[in-house]
Amino acid sequence: MSFIQVPKNSHFPIQNLPYGIFSTVQNVGLEPFYSLETFSQPLLTPSPPLLQPSPRVGVAIGDQILDLSVLAAYNFFQQGLPELPHALHIFSKPTLNAYMSLGKSVWSATRKFLQHLLSADVATLRDNTDLRHRAFVPQATARMHLPADIGDYTDFYCSREHATNVGVMFRGKDNALQPNWLHLPVGYHGRASSVVVSGTDIRRPAGQRLVSKENPTPMFAPSARMDFELEMAWLVGPGNELGEPVTIDKAKDHIFGMVVMNDWSARDIQNWEYVPLGPFLGKNFGTTISPWVVTLEALEPFLVNGPAQDPKPLAYLQESGPTAYDVHLEVKIKPAEAQDFHTICRSNLKYMYWSITQQLAHHTINGCNLRTGDLGGTGTLSGPVCQFSPFLCGLDSGTDDSYGSLLELSWSGSKEISIPRSTSTPDDVIKRKFIEDGDSILMTGWCEAPDGSYRVGFGECVGKLLPWRERGHMQG
Amino acid sequence: MSFIQVPKNSHFPIQNLPYGIFSTVQNVGLEPFYSLETFSQPLLTPSPPLLQPSPRVGVAIGDQILDLSVLAAYNFFQQGLPELPHALHIFSKPTLNAYMSLGKSVWSATRKFLQHLLSADVATLRDNTDLRHRAFVPQATARMHLPADIGDYTDFYCSREHATNVGVMFRGKDNALQPNWLHLPVGYHGRASSVVVSGTDIRRPAGQRLVSKENPTPMFAPSARMDFELEMAWLVGPGNELGEPVTIDKAKDHIFGMVVMNDWSARDIQNWEYVPLGPFLGKNFGTTISPWVVTLEALEPFLVNGPAQDPKPLAYLQESGPTAYDVHLEVKIKPAEAQDFHTICRSNLKYMYWSITQQLAHHTINGCNLRTGDLGGTGTLSGPVCQFSPFLCGLDSGTDDSYGSLLELSWSGSKEISIPRSTSTPDDVIKRKFIEDGDSILMTGWCEAPDGSYRVGFGECVGKLLPWRERGHMQG
Repeated sequence: MSFIQVPKNSHFPIQNLPYGIFSTVQNVGLEPFYSLETFSQPLLTPSPPLLQPSPRVGVAIGDQILDLSVLAAYNFFQQGLPELPHALHIFSKPTLNAYMSLGKSVWSATRKFLQHLLSADVATLRDNTDLRHRAFVPQATARMHLPADIGDYTDFYCSREHATNVGVMFRGKDNALQPNWLHLPVGYHGRASSVVVSGTDIRRPAGQRLVSKENPTPMFAPSARMDFELEMAWLVGPGNELGEPVTIDKAKDHIFGMVVMNDWSARDIQNWEYVPLGPFLGKNFGTTISPWVVTLEALEPFLVNGPAQDPKPLAYLQESGPTAYDVHLEVKIKPAEAQDFHTICRSNLKYMYWSITQQLAHHTINGCNLRTGDLGGTGTLSGPVCQFSPFLCGLDSGTDDSYGSLLELSWSGSKEISIPRSTSTPDDVIKRKFIEDGDSILMTGWCEAPDGSYRVGFGECVGKLLPWRERGHMQG
Repeated sequence: MSFIQVPKNSHFPIQNLPYGIFSTVQNVGLEPFYSLETFSQPLLTPSPPLLQPSPRVGVAIGDQILDLSVLAAYNFFQQGLPELPHALHIFSKPTLNAYMSLGKSVWSATRKFLQHLLSADVATLRDNTDLRHRAFVPQATARMHLPADIGDYTDFYCSREHATNVGVMFRGKDNALQPNWLHLPVGYHGRASSVVVSGTDIRRPAGQRLVSKENPTPMFAPSARMDFELEMAWLVGPGNELGEPVTIDKAKDHIFGMVVMNDWSARDIQNWEYVPLGPFLGKNFGTTISPWVVTLEALEPFLVNGPAQDPKPLAYLQESGPTAYDVHLEVKIKPAEAQDFHTICRSNLKYMYWSITQQLAHHTINGCNLRTGDLGGTGTLSGPVCQFSPFLCGLDSGTDDSYGSLLELSWSGSKEISIPRSTSTPDDVIKRKFIEDGDSILMTGWCEAPDGSYRVGFGECVGKLLPWRERGHMQG
């Protein structure tokens, strides 16, 4: 228990302590840096970021952010955490990369130390009113930033349910899965430059697409089949050298934590362009991630067995013990003309066929080097129930709204989903096959303690679709 | 003409002046920084990179490198180039990104200024023996580094000849080109982390591949079909904001220059994995680029008309005037047991169907943002002659060794190419279908002045294949 009040359904109890990059308009947390004499021990050489404090490292607790750069400036880490000698330098950075590069033992020691500092029965921070005022920032007043400098972003395709659903739509149920799918975690390179943090608006892209199935000539137009993809993603901690694969038993050492991700997709653009080299402009106009990185250590209590893998994977992909995480996932939509978000998808990370450690081991088996901050997406996380053929979807239970994309929810635009204009008028609905201008999409995820006493959550991953902006040169 | 001696066949005359990042063991060029009084005007605040000089910006001229950080330290730019106020800062960096971000007018002014300084009839640098000693570094004594911090690397597939050859092999000649190929420059995201500079050894990757066509179960093994791909690539200067496409008439303003590139490929891994999301581990274990970035301005005199485009592209891809570059390209191979490099491919950038400006405009048409330093590959640049069906290859002339990959040269392993053990014993040959351990691959490219008086060249892009390194965990 922390001395910070944390409601039972909060995503950010003391058991979580996710890391993020935040800034504040008035730099509230960093005011003391302007009067160095207020420091418990004066800093000899304040680094430039402190004089112009902007994005810096924080940890979420309840509805607050604990500003680690302030704790570092007060020499808390120097005194209590010898494992982290350059805390001020590391926590004043505008990305988590420096911290994420330090590795598991430092992360673990820092977590222990912060849990101690935040404990209800530890007075150090609890009873220092002045320091508490400086070190805690209400989340409501902070702006969140992209947590990492992402060198490369790879997206996998690891939900059997999603791959099957899409395969049924495109090739029929007898050829739903490609021959390689059950042998390796299929993945491809995504675009790192357009990964944005939750809250960033996404502009509807235009591009080439077919006029109709019958007409082989493409047209230029704004996408008419805008979609989301419910995903999660892992962030790389320490990287590996080019030519040096990471073995699967060491894969976890290279993963710092996870976020929720919306891989926005323009299905019509994607469909025309993707043969034979894969998705490109249908995907790279924007990918949204949640701002708080939940560490693997915080997720550890929620490890469960993943789906049975048959055929047995090749040796380099074999692992033992529970390798899946029980993360409840939801997608909500709010059209501009609706009052509330409405849940249209409920799924779970535990359904994913290939584990994140299998993804990482496979990614490096050819010697490909990962660097700190690299992002690995899971692919769309659809749930196990498919209403067309339960045979295809496995035996696990689920609801019929477990599809992680509108492509699946509207079954390629063949049916509409209904969204109440407000929760108080459930019969007054707005219809959707794909995302319309002004619609906001909100994704969230959380783990639930077995006794229901707390949640370890990911907060929100939200984005609004802006209308396409026509320009003269793009006509015709 | 420069006061630096430049042989007629050199790639680096005063008309070229490509930019690169280099370092020297003894930091020869930067010695003067340790005795500040030797400066013509002392520096008030030498920045840290100068005190630990390592990779920095240079320009190639003949067999020398002109160290721009030395020129900047002597205030040459401050005095002669007001367009570039922070020259010392920019030219002391370990990447070209800061300089590339400045844009066309600064690049152009810098080029004029350097051509002036290097002119045979300008005394400033020519007659200052001491400064010449400090500012010029023999290329033979320098180590070249990756020229840019590459945020994202995109690879296109823009040679009609290559796409056709591969298509014929995979799908037969009637379906060689996919339906979208003549409508858009097909591209996909590559891996930025494994782009390396010429001279870096590449380790043979292992991975999943099929045992045989008849057996659908994959095996784990080192790749048995190692290949090169002859490509060129452009580097992004100023980027564009997410959601803001670059129009084709402005595309050139966003390209700083070009390099020669070897997109190493493991054909068996690629073949098993690439459906439906494109190449991944078959490509991302290493991509080699030449160290000297030849500016678009230096290539301007070699603009020629590209292939006729039929059907007419959509409006956003239409451009006028010559848009192709007449760059002669060669691939050479030297097995470990051979004495010399032997040329196995002669091609030309001018055959490329989609121009580099069409590639860039297409890449951003959906709002995808490019950042300074991003790399855009052309795809394999095969020449126009295909020995199996001239009908497929267009009417242009060419030689039968114009294939830009071994996949094409050995026609998917169905025939062998012969490499003389030495130039003096042409009949004593080594046979190859794909690249063997210890083979070195060298690519080069150059433009030739119409009167043959000089070349604007790219230098060399070279790499050696190291054997796969087995590790215990990867058995079975």
